[in-house]
Amino acid sequence: MAIKYELIKTCKQSGARLGRLHTPHGVIETPIFMPVGTQATVKSMTPEELKDINSQIILSNTYHLYLRPGHKLIEKAGGLHKFMNWDKPILTDSGGFQVFSLGPLRKISEEGVEFRSHLDGSKHFISPEKAVEIQNSLGSDIMMAFDECAPYPADHDYVKKSLERTTRWAKRCKDAHENTDKQALFGIIQGGMYKDLREQSAKEIIDLDFPGYSVGGLSVGEPKDLMYEVLEYTTPLMPKDKPRYLMGVGSPDDLIEGVIRGIDMFDCVLPSRIGRNGTAMTSQGKVVIKNAKHKESFEPLDPECDCYTCKNYSRSYLRHLFKANEILGLRLLTNHNLYFLLNLMKEVRQAIMDDRLLDYRKEFFLKYGYEL
Amino acid sequence: MAIKYELIKTCKQSGARLGRLHTPHGVIETPIFMPVGTQATVKSMTPEELKDINSQIILSNTYHLYLRPGHKLIEKAGGLHKFMNWDKPILTDSGGFQVFSLGPLRKISEEGVEFRSHLDGSKHFISPEKAVEIQNSLGSDIMMAFDECAPYPADHDYVKKSLERTTRWAKRCKDAHENTDKQALFGIIQGGMYKDLREQSAKEIIDLDFPGYSVGGLSVGEPKDLMYEVLEYTTPLMPKDKPRYLMGVGSPDDLIEGVIRGIDMFDCVLPSRIGRNGTAMTSQGKVVIKNAKHKESFEPLDPECDCYTCKNYSRSYLRHLFKANEILGLRLLTNHNLYFLLNLMKEVRQAIMDDRLLDYRKEFFLKYGYEL
Repeated sequence: MAIKYELIKTCKQSGARLGRLHTPHGVIETPIFMPVGTQATVKSMTPEELKDINSQIILSNTYHLYLRPGHKLIEKAGGLHKFMNWDKPILTDSGGFQVFSLGPLRKISEEGVEFRSHLDGSKHFISPEKAVEIQNSLGSDIMMAFDECAPYPADHDYVKKSLERTTRWAKRCKDAHENTDKQALFGIIQGGMYKDLREQSAKEIIDLDFPGYSVGGLSVGEPKDLMYEVLEYTTPLMPKDKPRYLMGVGSPDDLIEGVIRGIDMFDCVLPSRIGRNGTAMTSQGKVVIKNAKHKESFEPLDPECDCYTCKNYSRSYLRHLFKANEILGLRLLTNHNLYFLLNLMKEVRQAIMDDRLLDYRKEFFLKYGYEL
Repeated sequence: MAIKYELIKTCKQSGARLGRLHTPHGVIETPIFMPVGTQATVKSMTPEELKDINSQIILSNTYHLYLRPGHKLIEKAGGLHKFMNWDKPILTDSGGFQVFSLGPLRKISEEGVEFRSHLDGSKHFISPEKAVEIQNSLGSDIMMAFDECAPYPADHDYVKKSLERTTRWAKRCKDAHENTDKQALFGIIQGGMYKDLREQSAKEIIDLDFPGYSVGGLSVGEPKDLMYEVLEYTTPLMPKDKPRYLMGVGSPDDLIEGVIRGIDMFDCVLPSRIGRNGTAMTSQGKVVIKNAKHKESFEPLDPECDCYTCKNYSRSYLRHLFKANEILGLRLLTNHNLYFLLNLMKEVRQAIMDDRLLDYRKEFFLKYGYEL
């Protein structure tokens, strides 16, 4: 087995789990947020900077790396860890979400998905077997099965057919996986916003016995309450001795609500993307750094934050960097936002340890400005 | 006196000088190359990274900072050092070169230069007094006099009138300077490519007794041989006990040839600009990282280089980052190029110490591919 999940304790105030995930590239304390390095780099950051803010694992992208620079090139380079100079764990998604997002550029069949590259229009085909082959070449610690992610909204019949195909594809992924001792393949539970379909998908996927499971098909445009509701009836169906990963979630409220409902792992481009666009997450809520009110503010972004950006730079300087289109500006806000979420998860872990996660949520959102 | 130049020795093979420049923010070993931080940031780099590659002093820009964010704002922030989190020496240029480069957007009179902002078209006026006031607000260790930089080619009569105005403006700058104990104001010698005019300008400017002198009006489009010739007859006119600064020069050949002709300080956007565009300076000459031949090269940019980029990343990965328009790519090449030039200057200082700079030049260019 490539990985092993160790459940340390469950919070007495909620379903939140404190755990450790042992991987070939080190141990991850969960619950954890995973910064996203789509193209074999977390945008604007070095690996050392990611470690300085206590990133324990990063995510990279099968679809993007397959197209550029190509998984065979990365295999020749010695794998993705060596290629990008990152020696801690890596999770790769399957590319499923990306190819389905191509819309008219893709055609789905039972065999797989035919699509045209968003880079040059060239024609490609990714099957469950191909997605696994690519991830075997990349050498990620955690691989994701190639699934079909139903859109929102979608009717019951569509979602049922889609989840059943996802089960057949999950089986094919498992059969194709060549490196089970060094790479763990996670199954993905689909079923949209339908309780009976989540139950069906959970049963079928868990019957295939994967070392970890993801809840897919959420954070696709549905209201937040609906996402929380789906999590509430889905996570209890999942094994207690395996890690649980909620894909594509990364706002502070969703992270905390997800943990409360028993999720261990999250990823999202949100913190880095809004950081590059000049929006910071702070303990007092969002700060849009280009706003005129920050022009002569010589205070840090977040007075409660100990990150490199907040310890060394004023809002005034950060605003200047963004107004002048200087790269250092987006570096500093990316760094801060990722630190903010990783530190939030550290506090969440402590709150679980102390059996007070619901109290922590209340304290956090009183400052952050979230309505409970 | 804000600064003091200490001449350690002169190379027995050339006119090259080894020295130390004492400033309010520390001692600079000369000859030195100064990375350029036009808008209060050396593009893509943090101050810590600049220190890691042994940057001893950086340059920033009066014209750009006056327009954005404004020198009064920077004064309120506690000066440029504090604003940008850089505690080592800073040199600011006067803005003269930038406003003259505006072409039809500017109008020169004896009083100063009226111009329209390249940012929003707003009208502004910079006089010698204003250029000094701005630099006093910025608090740079070394300020430059507001001069008129003649274009190349320009006729004798034009250049003579221009250098004489530069002398009158230099006097006005000196009279306006309010902070002589903490900021050193350098005079600029003009005179184009005419020996008699360089002699006239050198005499007039040196008679005003500045703590340091710059050779201006070179690297403006003239052939390299002509620049070297002007330096050959200009530097012997300059005092031995004051630092000598050649503005706007930063290719490896020009740095070495400048040092041989007695120059102590250089600045140029070249290494960082070509780095951001994917060209690296290496001990074997230039490397254009996007070239297809680097696709499967798992070697470093420069096998002889000890910089962060060369110790940790392959050409193949760097090429991928540039092909994918990833910010980390231009960060890594900027870092490498600045390290390369700063390390070149360190080797040049050692060669002066060892009285073998001409031998060093020969060895360097045999590898670099420069015709002697």
